[in-house]
Amino acid sequence: MHVLVTGGGGYIGLELCRQLIERGDRVRVVDRFFFGDAPLLELAERSGGRLEAILGDVRAIDDAWFEGIEGVSHLAGLSNDPTAEYNPDANWQMNAIATERLGEACKRHGIARLVFGSSASLYDGIGPGMFDERTAVQPRGAYSISKKYGEDALLALAGDGFAPTILRQGTVYGWSPRMRFDLVVNTFLKDAATVGKLYLHGGGWQWRPLVDVGDVARAHIVCLTAPLDVVGGEIFNVMQENYQVRQLAMLVAGSLSLHGRHVALEEAPLPKLVRDYRMTNLKMTQRLGFTPAVTVLESIDVMLGKLPLDNVGWLANPRWYNIAWMSVLEEVHASQRAFASIY
Amino acid sequence: MHVLVTGGGGYIGLELCRQLIERGDRVRVVDRFFFGDAPLLELAERSGGRLEAILGDVRAIDDAWFEGIEGVSHLAGLSNDPTAEYNPDANWQMNAIATERLGEACKRHGIARLVFGSSASLYDGIGPGMFDERTAVQPRGAYSISKKYGEDALLALAGDGFAPTILRQGTVYGWSPRMRFDLVVNTFLKDAATVGKLYLHGGGWQWRPLVDVGDVARAHIVCLTAPLDVVGGEIFNVMQENYQVRQLAMLVAGSLSLHGRHVALEEAPLPKLVRDYRMTNLKMTQRLGFTPAVTVLESIDVMLGKLPLDNVGWLANPRWYNIAWMSVLEEVHASQRAFASIY
Repeated sequence: MHVLVTGGGGYIGLELCRQLIERGDRVRVVDRFFFGDAPLLELAERSGGRLEAILGDVRAIDDAWFEGIEGVSHLAGLSNDPTAEYNPDANWQMNAIATERLGEACKRHGIARLVFGSSASLYDGIGPGMFDERTAVQPRGAYSISKKYGEDALLALAGDGFAPTILRQGTVYGWSPRMRFDLVVNTFLKDAATVGKLYLHGGGWQWRPLVDVGDVARAHIVCLTAPLDVVGGEIFNVMQENYQVRQLAMLVAGSLSLHGRHVALEEAPLPKLVRDYRMTNLKMTQRLGFTPAVTVLESIDVMLGKLPLDNVGWLANPRWYNIAWMSVLEEVHASQRAFASIY
Repeated sequence: MHVLVTGGGGYIGLELCRQLIERGDRVRVVDRFFFGDAPLLELAERSGGRLEAILGDVRAIDDAWFEGIEGVSHLAGLSNDPTAEYNPDANWQMNAIATERLGEACKRHGIARLVFGSSASLYDGIGPGMFDERTAVQPRGAYSISKKYGEDALLALAGDGFAPTILRQGTVYGWSPRMRFDLVVNTFLKDAATVGKLYLHGGGWQWRPLVDVGDVARAHIVCLTAPLDVVGGEIFNVMQENYQVRQLAMLVAGSLSLHGRHVALEEAPLPKLVRDYRMTNLKMTQRLGFTPAVTVLESIDVMLGKLPLDNVGWLANPRWYNIAWMSVLEEVHASQRAFASIY
């Protein structure tokens, strides 16, 4: 299969490209490379010529990207709340409008399969409960509102041979060559290793659906290869399990204690905006026979084998935090000014 | 409702009686009181005359027990592997044969509702995977073999106005006035408080389905009160969630660390018999609209508020361990000798 992966240089994208190459597929990556292209180029070198990297921005779609493409995984865009709030215009253009344009381009080029990496954060803010793909969502932040627009736009385009699939991805954890430490499990692991202390805001009783980065990539491949009548026009939650944040802190602290490191847990006041939501992954299990299986504990174990735990400088490098790496944010600003003339 | 609770003086039974009394029901308890009757008598005193305690043995059923009874929750019997292995005859008579006799008695007395506290350990030994009520089980220990016999016997009796319900209860955790510390979460809590160290056998990666004692009691009440055509002749898994044992140790250690106590985690060799199984609670959720909700973390928090953590003598009292309290085991032996003439 020849797959176009937007955002293929990012946290999930790299793992997806690795799995596709391992399967024997051909991959074309389009990425703005805000966070560097080194890990992807390294993967390209090992791909036997089956991975092609294009420096491109989803806000300026190029017809050449789609030549020979049989399926698209769309992972490009801003990937968390703080970045989206930092430049709501850039977020809207990348996450909402560009997603719609990408769907239109696929339809124009006769590409039926587009798998969109949406977000489980759509379920936030509608109170307690267990949510599935039929839940009436009410996104409340710039990030989740833009993801919802992208979903709706793609589903509205479905038909005439275009059959997009929406993946509402839980909060991701796990190792990737382009690491992210702004995600709760990874953040805890970094804080535990560098500061030796984890704060449980409001006791950390809030629920979050979580999923390993390798399982998210597998979910994309499952949807890129499943019968079109099973996945076309469908939304699937992608999750290993719902966890309470308090539990995650304890799993990180416990795992590190087995490595001889003491981690203190401390209760702290609640921040202003608390995310608290649960979802079910039943639809994916029943319709696709795929259930994300790598637990937080198993993923922590892998990360502890890969992360340079004693290299505090590396762990604390703001490069790994989407919001803290100011040079990236300034680049986002600059790029949005450049694109302001296009839209 | 007037409910007969066999084993009402035990770990789950006491909590079930408490909830029934709180609902305004009348309760008749039949219990051998191997572990004492004090907590039940205390509850009876607060029941306004709605709780009646009978010293009786399910191996010698008395027709008088059923007078005026509208539903039965059957919790009597030996309740773990070591006790069952210690006296397999007593286990067979109490858990298998007595269950069948109880079903026959209900049918004879025109009592449609019998809810049987069976065990999720039936799913052990059939390899990895996720099991539901339709799974072909192959129990391998004295305890689970006897529970399976009880299930089959009751289901074979179903009909002619008799409509038993089987609850396959996960490993239970949580506070009860008749405490048990032979159950994994409770054991970890006791060991953490008394020894300050928890061992993860084989890394503790094995899966176990778990459920809070209050949720098990609620499941019984849901089945005692649901429409008969929904619960009659049905098996339901009762579980909050599947956990890896490693995870449970970390949740206990983390919870105690928030109470200022350091708990060491240590990997240890695997014991001979490792329980490793997962199940789904989907059927109960979908058919009965009830899902056990009290998490291990929440239950630990309650127990930490109730247990005398600094009273090592109390925590380490063998009275709380079904297998270690030799006087009980000898009583089991003696009682079985007495009943040998009956069967």
